Amino acid sequence: MIQIDLRRLFLKDEIHSVIRQMINLINSPVCIMDSKGKKIIGEMDEGLSCEYPIALENRAIGMVYGGEKASVLAFLLSCLANLELEKKALGREALKKYREITLLYDIAEKLTASLDPKEAAQLVVDVAKMLIKADNISVMLKNEESGVFELLASSGRELHPGEGLKIGIGIAGGVFHSGRAEIVNDISSDDRYVSGAVRVSSLMCAPLKIKDRVIGVIYVSSEERAHYTAEDLKLLSALAFQAAADIENARLYDSLKETFLTTVHILAETIEKRDPYTGGHIKRVMNYSMAVGKELGLPELEMEHLELAAVLHDIGKISIRDSVLLKKGKLTVDEFAEIKMHPIYAEEILDHIKHLKGIIPGVKHHHERYDGSGYPEGLKGNDIDIIARIISVADAFDAMTTDRPYRERMELAEAFDELRANSGTQFDPRVVKAFFTACSENRIPVERQGK
Amino acid sequence: MIQIDLRRLFLKDEIHSVIRQMINLINSPVCIMDSKGKKIIGEMDEGLSCEYPIALENRAIGMVYGGEKASVLAFLLSCLANLELEKKALGREALKKYREITLLYDIAEKLTASLDPKEAAQLVVDVAKMLIKADNISVMLKNEESGVFELLASSGRELHPGEGLKIGIGIAGGVFHSGRAEIVNDISSDDRYVSGAVRVSSLMCAPLKIKDRVIGVIYVSSEERAHYTAEDLKLLSALAFQAAADIENARLYDSLKETFLTTVHILAETIEKRDPYTGGHIKRVMNYSMAVGKELGLPELEMEHLELAAVLHDIGKISIRDSVLLKKGKLTVDEFAEIKMHPIYAEEILDHIKHLKGIIPGVKHHHERYDGSGYPEGLKGNDIDIIARIISVADAFDAMTTDRPYRERMELAEAFDELRANSGTQFDPRVVKAFFTACSENRIPVERQGK
Repeated sequence: MIQIDLRRLFLKDEIHSVIRQMINLINSPVCIMDSKGKKIIGEMDEGLSCEYPIALENRAIGMVYGGEKASVLAFLLSCLANLELEKKALGREALKKYREITLLYDIAEKLTASLDPKEAAQLVVDVAKMLIKADNISVMLKNEESGVFELLASSGRELHPGEGLKIGIGIAGGVFHSGRAEIVNDISSDDRYVSGAVRVSSLMCAPLKIKDRVIGVIYVSSEERAHYTAEDLKLLSALAFQAAADIENARLYDSLKETFLTTVHILAETIEKRDPYTGGHIKRVMNYSMAVGKELGLPELEMEHLELAAVLHDIGKISIRDSVLLKKGKLTVDEFAEIKMHPIYAEEILDHIKHLKGIIPGVKHHHERYDGSGYPEGLKGNDIDIIARIISVADAFDAMTTDRPYRERMELAEAFDELRANSGTQFDPRVVKAFFTACSENRIPVERQGK
Repeated sequence: MIQIDLRRLFLKDEIHSVIRQMINLINSPVCIMDSKGKKIIGEMDEGLSCEYPIALENRAIGMVYGGEKASVLAFLLSCLANLELEKKALGREALKKYREITLLYDIAEKLTASLDPKEAAQLVVDVAKMLIKADNISVMLKNEESGVFELLASSGRELHPGEGLKIGIGIAGGVFHSGRAEIVNDISSDDRYVSGAVRVSSLMCAPLKIKDRVIGVIYVSSEERAHYTAEDLKLLSALAFQAAADIENARLYDSLKETFLTTVHILAETIEKRDPYTGGHIKRVMNYSMAVGKELGLPELEMEHLELAAVLHDIGKISIRDSVLLKKGKLTVDEFAEIKMHPIYAEEILDHIKHLKGIIPGVKHHHERYDGSGYPEGLKGNDIDIIARIISVADAFDAMTTDRPYRERMELAEAFDELRANSGTQFDPRVVKAFFTACSENRIPVERQGK
């Protein structure tokens, strides 16, 4: 509650002057005291026969002692105190709104949506944490397959670790179904509550909505009793609105990316084998390559190029006839020359795709050798794109460790020896080293290949 | 400027009562008049020898006439008027902030980013239009290839139609380079200004920034002189911040989608021909199909499925051997049976791709016939997916109007006759009708095929 200190009222020159003039006008002794009985103006005297309270909202904030005329003074002071109170209330309101505006601008600046769903959700959680007092903030999405809430991001401990919270039960379930945000300041009075791993005394929950479709909730809880207000809920709802759109966009992007990669992957595999998809070579080459790329600390964009280049490394084989590509016996010199064209064919294909031009070096040069004796261009050392150097090792290792029409697969130890023996001639030693490190740290699932 | 009406001050019971008590205290005639000389309290009398102004910010808002003691009254009224003024100013401030908050919540609700760059930009323009007084609002992005601003969305007339505004000149160019938002309330005093198709007297311009990278500007202009304030610019900058992120995400999505479609398209074409990409069959089948789908009013999701299904309709041919697929002479019964497997092979491939399962019916059944005599399942009429029925017409028309290894292409008129003749048996009559409508409206580029 806003307080008015009578004594401070007198610090204002104007008011002090008005009161002084009034006292002159009254022209008889007067004493003004604050609510604690401390003198502000005049001296207390037995002759001051009357007393008048200075009233503010039914409370006396001071007294005026004097003759009958002193009542005007008390009335005026009450009047001034009231005006001061109204001013203070308005000032506080303006300050509060000002803070809210600053927060909203902050949100707008910070919530520049990420295209990664988890990152987008984490951003919302981080912003909510700055704005709302809470021990736990969670963004939960409905998993369409399992029908259970899935934790996308949170601050604090996980509320329902393990199996997750079923949709339809609990307060979050209620909010999910009604699509309406709720405050529950006293959880003990709400029998929908399902207790989890974290103590909760008060909570707020707002639905994540895309138009009229609810995709999840944002959930804010406090271990001690909190007094969440309608304003807090309004803020949470604004955040939820933004979050829902950002997360949905990120999910759409993610899903398109997955579809793109899977489609290219499946097509490439089918092209490679000229047989229905078996989930083999390309997947392994991609896994090996990515593990090596990570070990070498490639930046994010390079990792994306590596992934695509690994998937598409043999795409040029589309243009090689069955009679050569699927031949069981030994190839003639001419036939081998045709096989050696596949990196060039790959370049011709990828050259039509604006955003894939970046992966051409990785694809085109995966048969170059570190010592310059490879094809198609006989590039040497670091002139060969790092992506091509990585795929070269991954591709060779997979070829050695899987059965081929013309020979059985090698033992693992033998394949490792082979990599080691050709490090520095066929392969980049740095890449071979990274491959072994990744293997020894179990980041390359070598036990699965060739089975 | 905020005005205080002396007369209204007396409407407040408390104040009226204080003044009345003061007049009693003064105990001699008094008259209070407003600034226009109209009486508020008391009567004007020659005996009122003194006059005291009621001052508010160095201006007299009224006069008090009376004896010497009346000066206290004038002073008190000045004091009350001042307090009232302060209260009013605070009230206005709170109201203004309240409105700003409502606007910011509105922005948060309305700016739920679209994944279409133009739509995302238009949304920002529409929101800006509600918030800021302007005749013209434009979102311009730098075209990385041409180095010129490209209009992404606008309200009002286009500022620089035709060749667009070069980056580096004009105020927008300045903002683009400095990365700092600007207000120019008097354009005639700014010699950077490059006049365009629209009269501009005042403008604001804010950069669209992704972290420290400027991708474009948002530009707000008024034909008449406007008085844009720092607050307007703050609002525009907040919008610009949001807009930049939304547009960038939409562009990334767009670019991924384009890469996906192009990649699949190029691969499918290469698979179809077992030869380098020639930009032929698949592109035409896709164009014909999309024109027919549009004519039939297919909803957006169906159109997306149609596009992908048209691109992938022959993907199953990957699994057919060269000896059959590329055979020049007439096929044997067994060979034709193998060809007829390609829709089944396509299903096997697409079945591995979660988000492409929806296009399987369109791909698998594009060789079904409306009368039930097609393959692989002999489906009939509307049991055949509408997408498959569309691709069937598009595919047949392209086959007829392009040269094949075993025959020359038909004349256009002949191919049209063929479609007409088989409408109701091989083809869905509705689809054939839509194809002809689209042709007659030049939405199908038939003159290009087969060249």
